[in-house]
Amino acid sequence: MRILLDVMGGDSPPEELIRGGVAAAHETNVDILFAGNLQTIRAVLARIHEQEGSHFSILPATQTITMADPPVQAVRNKRESSLVKGLVALRDKQVDGFVSPGNTGAVVAGSIFTLGRLPGILRPGIAASLPTLSGQEIIVIDVGANVDCAPKHFEGFAMMGASYAAAVKGIHEPRIALLSIGEERGKGNKLNYHAYDCLEASSLKFIGNVEGHHLLTERPVDVVVCDGFVGNIYLKAVEGGISAVTALLRRNINASARAKVGAVLMQPVFRILRDKLSYQQHGGAPLLGVNGIVVIAHGRSDAMAIQTAINVARCTATANLNKLITKQMKRENASGG
Amino acid sequence: MRILLDVMGGDSPPEELIRGGVAAAHETNVDILFAGNLQTIRAVLARIHEQEGSHFSILPATQTITMADPPVQAVRNKRESSLVKGLVALRDKQVDGFVSPGNTGAVVAGSIFTLGRLPGILRPGIAASLPTLSGQEIIVIDVGANVDCAPKHFEGFAMMGASYAAAVKGIHEPRIALLSIGEERGKGNKLNYHAYDCLEASSLKFIGNVEGHHLLTERPVDVVVCDGFVGNIYLKAVEGGISAVTALLRRNINASARAKVGAVLMQPVFRILRDKLSYQQHGGAPLLGVNGIVVIAHGRSDAMAIQTAINVARCTATANLNKLITKQMKRENASGG
Repeated sequence: MRILLDVMGGDSPPEELIRGGVAAAHETNVDILFAGNLQTIRAVLARIHEQEGSHFSILPATQTITMADPPVQAVRNKRESSLVKGLVALRDKQVDGFVSPGNTGAVVAGSIFTLGRLPGILRPGIAASLPTLSGQEIIVIDVGANVDCAPKHFEGFAMMGASYAAAVKGIHEPRIALLSIGEERGKGNKLNYHAYDCLEASSLKFIGNVEGHHLLTERPVDVVVCDGFVGNIYLKAVEGGISAVTALLRRNINASARAKVGAVLMQPVFRILRDKLSYQQHGGAPLLGVNGIVVIAHGRSDAMAIQTAINVARCTATANLNKLITKQMKRENASGG
Repeated sequence: MRILLDVMGGDSPPEELIRGGVAAAHETNVDILFAGNLQTIRAVLARIHEQEGSHFSILPATQTITMADPPVQAVRNKRESSLVKGLVALRDKQVDGFVSPGNTGAVVAGSIFTLGRLPGILRPGIAASLPTLSGQEIIVIDVGANVDCAPKHFEGFAMMGASYAAAVKGIHEPRIALLSIGEERGKGNKLNYHAYDCLEASSLKFIGNVEGHHLLTERPVDVVVCDGFVGNIYLKAVEGGISAVTALLRRNINASARAKVGAVLMQPVFRILRDKLSYQQHGGAPLLGVNGIVVIAHGRSDAMAIQTAINVARCTATANLNKLITKQMKRENASGG
C-alpha cells in the first residue's frame, strides 16, 4: 500500500511531517509518496539517512496552499500545489490514500472537485475520532466540511459515521446520537429539530440527542452527528478544555520543588494522560463521502500526529470503506430512507 | 440587599442549595429569600441551626418546574412554582436579584414574560464567565437563551457582554470577538458571516473571529459572542474536556501507590486546578437584557456553586448593570448602530 503525504501547508515545517511519514513506513509496511518541494524533501531524507526509492518517493510540487488561502480559489488557481497534485495522484490510483495537515477547506474543495462524491452522498463529512476514558474512541461527524447544512445532510453523516465505526473501528451496530444542548427531543435549534426527524426515519440505531459534557468520560454513544460548524466548535472547545488543565498543571508543577517531586512520582499517570487524550495519538480525520481515501491531519500536527493520520488512511483503505458506504447508501435509498 | 434563591428544580437536593445560600449570606451582608417547599426549607434551616427572620426568609411555593418540563408551557401552567413566584417577587421589587439552578429555558421564558426586556434589547442573552489561566475570566454570550438567531442579535449580545465586562468585571474597553472556526474573516457559517458585518458596524471594540481552542490558555479577548446553541455546545465541550483530564488523573492516581504519594505532594497544585477551573467557583451566568437581575446557576450546582451565583447576582445588582445597558443601547440606537 502506498499513501501520499502532503508535507507543505501545515503549521509544522516539512521536516517534522516527513519524519512522521518515515516513522509510519517503518512501523507498518506502507510506502510513502511525499508531495512538496523536491529539494526540501530530498535534503530531509538525506539528513535522516533514508533513501529515495520505492519505499519513499517524491511528487514534486512548486506551489503551496497556505492556511490563509481561500479554499475554492486556491484549489482552482494553484494546480501545481502539493495538495492539488496529491489529490490528482490519488484520483489516478498512483496511491491508495492521501494525508494532509494543510488548509482543511482546500482539502475538502479539492477532494470534491478532483475525486467526486460517492454515489448517493449529498455532502462529504469529516469524521473525527475522539479519545474517551473507556479506551474506545467516539466518532464525531461532521467537524468542518459543511458549515451550513440542511436536516437531510445529517442522515448522510450518520450513515457514513456508522460505516466508519463498524468497518474501521470494529464497532458492531454503532449507536448514533445528535449533538445538542439537552437530551430531551425538543432541545436544540430548528436545524437539529428537523435533523432529529431525518435520523429517526433512517434505518440506523439512532438513540436521540446527546450533550457534550460527558462524551469523553461516559461515552454514551459510538457516533455523534452534527453540522460542520458546530462539530468544529465542539472539537476545538474540547481541545481548549484539555489544554487548559494540562497547561495549568505544567505551570504550577514548575513553580514548586515539592510539586516537581510529586510530578516525577506521577510520571506514569501523566504518560497515560498524554497517550490517552492527546490529538497526536488520535489525530487523522477521514473526509468521508468522496471517491478516494482522504485523511485530514490536525494543522499543528507533529511527526507522531502524522504517523497516526497515515495509519488512519491505511486502515480506512484496508477496510474498503468507500465500497461499504456506497453499498449502504444504495440500500438506504432503495428502502426510501 | 436581598437575593431570591430558587431551591427547587436543580439537580441537587434543596438542602445543598440552601446551604449555598446560607454560606453566601454569611460571607457578605446579603439577605436570602428561599423560594420552594415551605416544610423542606424550614426543616433544613432548623437542621443547620439558622433562624427564619429578616436574614433568611421563605417564599412558599407548592409547584416545581423540572428540567424535563417544556419551558413555555411550564411557565404558563405552573404559576405556583418557585421559579415563577420568584420572578414575580423580583418584578415586584421584593428582592434585588433572582438565582436559580433550574430549567434554563423556563428561567429565560419566565423572565421575559414576567420582567420584560430592557428598552432596545431584541433578545436577552446568557453571559457565562469562564476561568482562564491569566486569572481573569472571559465572558461568553449567548450560552443558551436563543438557539436560533439572526445576525442583528449578535450586536445586542456584544453590547450587553461588553457592559457586563466593564461594569461587573472591571475591564476597560472590552475587546469583543465572534466565536468561529477560523480566524480569517471568511471562516464560519452564513450566520456568522453576516453577524461579523453587524459587529464591525457597531461602536464596539470588535477584533474579529476567534477560535475555541486557546480561549482559556491565551485569553485573546474579553468577550466572545455567539448564538445560544453554539455557545452552549462550546461551554459543555470545555467542561467535557476538563472533566476528561481530571477523571483520568483521579482514576490512575488511585490505581497506583507511587502515584498516590506523588499526588499528595502535588496537592497544592491540584487545589489551584480545582480553584481555577471548576464551574463551582465560576458558575452563575446572568441573563442580560431582561428588566431585573436574573442569574442562572449550573443545573448540577452544589452549595459552593450557588454561593458563587449569589455573589454574581449581588455584584451585578450593585453595579447597576441594567441602567448601564439601557443607556448604552440608547446611545447605540441614536448613532444608528
